[in-house]
Amino acid sequence: MDIIKDPQEMHTWSREQARQGKTVCLVPTMGFFHEGHLSLMRRGATLCDRVVVSLFVNPTQFGPNEDLSRYPRDFERDMALVRQEKVAAVFAPTPELMYPPGYQTEVRVKVLSTYLCGKSRPVHFAGVATVVTKLFNVVRPDVAVFGEKDFQQLAIIRRMVTDLNIPVRIVGQPIVREPDGLAMSSRNAYLDPANRAAALSLSTGLAKVREAAAKGERSVAMLADMLERHIHSFAGARIDYASFIDGDTLESVATVDTNTVLALAVHIDGKVRLIDNGYVLLGSRG
Amino acid sequence: MDIIKDPQEMHTWSREQARQGKTVCLVPTMGFFHEGHLSLMRRGATLCDRVVVSLFVNPTQFGPNEDLSRYPRDFERDMALVRQEKVAAVFAPTPELMYPPGYQTEVRVKVLSTYLCGKSRPVHFAGVATVVTKLFNVVRPDVAVFGEKDFQQLAIIRRMVTDLNIPVRIVGQPIVREPDGLAMSSRNAYLDPANRAAALSLSTGLAKVREAAAKGERSVAMLADMLERHIHSFAGARIDYASFIDGDTLESVATVDTNTVLALAVHIDGKVRLIDNGYVLLGSRG
Repeated sequence: MDIIKDPQEMHTWSREQARQGKTVCLVPTMGFFHEGHLSLMRRGATLCDRVVVSLFVNPTQFGPNEDLSRYPRDFERDMALVRQEKVAAVFAPTPELMYPPGYQTEVRVKVLSTYLCGKSRPVHFAGVATVVTKLFNVVRPDVAVFGEKDFQQLAIIRRMVTDLNIPVRIVGQPIVREPDGLAMSSRNAYLDPANRAAALSLSTGLAKVREAAAKGERSVAMLADMLERHIHSFAGARIDYASFIDGDTLESVATVDTNTVLALAVHIDGKVRLIDNGYVLLGSRG
Repeated sequence: MDIIKDPQEMHTWSREQARQGKTVCLVPTMGFFHEGHLSLMRRGATLCDRVVVSLFVNPTQFGPNEDLSRYPRDFERDMALVRQEKVAAVFAPTPELMYPPGYQTEVRVKVLSTYLCGKSRPVHFAGVATVVTKLFNVVRPDVAVFGEKDFQQLAIIRRMVTDLNIPVRIVGQPIVREPDGLAMSSRNAYLDPANRAAALSLSTGLAKVREAAAKGERSVAMLADMLERHIHSFAGARIDYASFIDGDTLESVATVDTNTVLALAVHIDGKVRLIDNGYVLLGSRG
């Protein structure tokens, strides 16, 4: 497995794969791997001849008061994990290589970036769209796999790829959960035992909504009210948003249908912000 | 010569060239060809196996009060001209194919876009950067040729290509001038005989500045004063900007050196806005 830091070297590596007729799948990550990341890599290996994992904690997608400096990192552990997967190369550039002096270009998906996480994280998705554009140009993948846990991110990347005619196929990979239902996230490392209990408010809230919807409840007002009471029954849990949205446009809906997604962001103990999501009607797409 | 309207078809065409080991040069244009455009195509033919000319009057780079609707167009004449050049394909999409419903992505080069033309045309360069990104993704050229007449545009494209790691080599091609010095432009078609005379204020102003600089004048204050009086001596000519800038950063300079560019935008008779530019010290780079 090759570990490459320099974008130009990565690009040359990818060109060589293309020259040999090999297809390349990119799995963009910020490292600190868990089973969710590994599932993306395994999916990639079923789709292409070569899997490239990018590992870059992208500073431009963190706001000034966010957790860039304390974001969990463990490069050696990540390399040990990734070596057990069918990964041909890891692209791990430094911020200085990605954003040298004079850097000033930004890619924005204007409407989708304003919803949900975009409200509390106004610069986040421009940072994501920009770095993904850069990664696509460096690696030139045929396919890229993104986790459905970052539902809005996936919708934004799909929109950007369509809008900018980027010749990359985008594949979404389902959320991987802990045995008790907590969606896997590198940020779960922030949770102490009490917060770990409160973190279950998201997945259990999603489950309760699905249960009620399965029994016939279609009113978002009713479901949202129940959900809010459920989440706030967990000590330390405070809702950032709990939105019933159309899975394609991300616009709020008033009535649940087969394309309705529940998207959740919850602050735990004022210190950790977790997200989760899922289609409300199981068997539709969730 | 192939004429292609559909982006997907254009992309397939380019992929086939790459598969055959042929290099591709893109010449992005808005049509209504003059010798300046043809010089770009001829330059492209010296650089790559295949030249693709894109012909698209991009609506997103025109402001609401600009000349989108009256911008000169003559597709049949353009095709007759281009058929005489070594051009393998013309990519001529419609606005609907480039910006289908739901379109919402923008590429911005944040600092360089605020100077010079960016002051009077605030949306212009985001439109340019975005459409060029799209064209690059559709055509995937090895090289792209842009005219130096649009000096700021060329600087912005170079910056964008560096910033976004776009694997395209950018080549600038010198301004082509009429025998009397007027820089060729599709917008010259707007000029009636009186305005045509006033349009010479730009090239003659540039020549006067170069002459004074060649004699040793290095003070921008002195040169700018002389230039302003010169341009405003033409009836109907009104300066939008006449800026002495660093050729790389586009920032204003106070003293002329070998990297100083004079960038000019002049309104003629309140109806036509023309631009011109050149390195002040000939023999340096101009």
